[in-house]
Amino acid sequence: MGRLTARTRVARIAADGALARREDLLAVEEPLELRVGGRALSVTMRTPGHDQELAAGFLVSEGVVAAPGQIARMIHCASPDGENTFNVLDVTLAPGVPAPDASLERHVYTTSSCGVCGKASIDAVRTRSAFPLTAGDPLVRSSLVAALPDRLREAQEIFERTGGLHAAGLFDAATGEPLVIREDVGRHNAVDKVLGWAYLAGMLPLSGAILQVSGRASFELVQKASMAGVPILSAVSAPSSLAVELARDAGLTLAGFVRGGAMVAYSGLERLRVESEALVP
Amino acid sequence: MGRLTARTRVARIAADGALARREDLLAVEEPLELRVGGRALSVTMRTPGHDQELAAGFLVSEGVVAAPGQIARMIHCASPDGENTFNVLDVTLAPGVPAPDASLERHVYTTSSCGVCGKASIDAVRTRSAFPLTAGDPLVRSSLVAALPDRLREAQEIFERTGGLHAAGLFDAATGEPLVIREDVGRHNAVDKVLGWAYLAGMLPLSGAILQVSGRASFELVQKASMAGVPILSAVSAPSSLAVELARDAGLTLAGFVRGGAMVAYSGLERLRVESEALVP
Repeated sequence: MGRLTARTRVARIAADGALARREDLLAVEEPLELRVGGRALSVTMRTPGHDQELAAGFLVSEGVVAAPGQIARMIHCASPDGENTFNVLDVTLAPGVPAPDASLERHVYTTSSCGVCGKASIDAVRTRSAFPLTAGDPLVRSSLVAALPDRLREAQEIFERTGGLHAAGLFDAATGEPLVIREDVGRHNAVDKVLGWAYLAGMLPLSGAILQVSGRASFELVQKASMAGVPILSAVSAPSSLAVELARDAGLTLAGFVRGGAMVAYSGLERLRVESEALVP
Repeated sequence: MGRLTARTRVARIAADGALARREDLLAVEEPLELRVGGRALSVTMRTPGHDQELAAGFLVSEGVVAAPGQIARMIHCASPDGENTFNVLDVTLAPGVPAPDASLERHVYTTSSCGVCGKASIDAVRTRSAFPLTAGDPLVRSSLVAALPDRLREAQEIFERTGGLHAAGLFDAATGEPLVIREDVGRHNAVDKVLGWAYLAGMLPLSGAILQVSGRASFELVQKASMAGVPILSAVSAPSSLAVELARDAGLTLAGFVRGGAMVAYSGLERLRVESEALVP
């Protein structure tokens, strides 16, 4: 486990101007440099802890690994003076697994042509995902999905104390039970951590799981779900246009505004069995 | 102006299972490839529009430009087949302005040593900012800051329609009047857009301005404020540990949980004149 929270002295100013000094808890943010075979690949600002899962999930999202055993080793490495900040993680890929291009960045899904656009980004995901989705499978009660934000929130350990973390959770599509939940200052990190957890447990593709996130659904989050074979992504807030386009293209069910028992289905409605239908024998 | 919203058909599932098909508005997300002198520097997923401001703000944040006139030209370039997706922006720096390292990425503030940590990230910002802040200046009524989230929300054109956009605004520290407000699917982009607007208007350093953001305060947002010489950053939600550390190191006032007239001051309290003090003659 990493350093999830930090204490600090703050001054609270009430609406009437009253000033009170007190101690406050902050969500910890630290840089993590990810190296593959000793070469720096990316630096992300993240909440420490579950770094191996974060790295594995990032490599799944970027199409570097998909099958079990493609990651041989992951270690936090020490600086030349022997100090280990636990902020540098070196990944060794298994023999025969091509190393990613050193120019790989989080947001580069596109060709280098001048015609970069959403379509090119979607094409890049489609051609790289090892796990195409099956239409209409699994079939899930909409009320099960509607209950996930509360289950995610209940399981969030840190948010209640700091108000500062995004959360992602994988839930069993048949039972609604949580498989794993992670929190992070970055929502893409929280998703990488749960997907990396599943990769390291040999559970990819996640064809029987629902990914629930605490915030909005961006293109990047749909990409990550798609790369890990997750058929259903549920978000508490709004999706973006490109998130919806990619979800439709990949055949992924995307639910947004999942609140108070209601939701908006942006794609893949055929996987959701609504209650009114369920009442009909 | 870009394509801020997109229409799409969705299915709303109510809590009682009732299904209603309707049209919905989405916040547009598209990739923007930023080039400097023809070389690709970064790709970010953003809401189209104000791309020049976004690029200028990004270059300010990264320490590439600071003084007026250091950007000679910015144009959307067309693909080889003549199509212009308005998703590639080529920046030409003025003669004598060093081009950024092609390896520059959003989150690389650190040395390549194995000792990457928050301290190194903070040091990198301190050594690069062209605009050190003056302690205790400006002095601002806390009630003025407390009113900014509502003013930001009122000015948000898109959020009410899509629920899907972050917002950032620059406000005059003396009057509380908005200078500029921008929205984007990415909160760092919204901040880049307002800072880039100010850079292009020759207003840096922003020593008389308050930066108000709609969400949380990360290290990256404090970095951007610091690089543009903004003395006060106000966030509706929680800051991270590294955001607070950097704010204290840079002498920047950081207010979080600015809601309902109250707030928490994490650093730079001396710039905030609380009402109870104001009532004393």
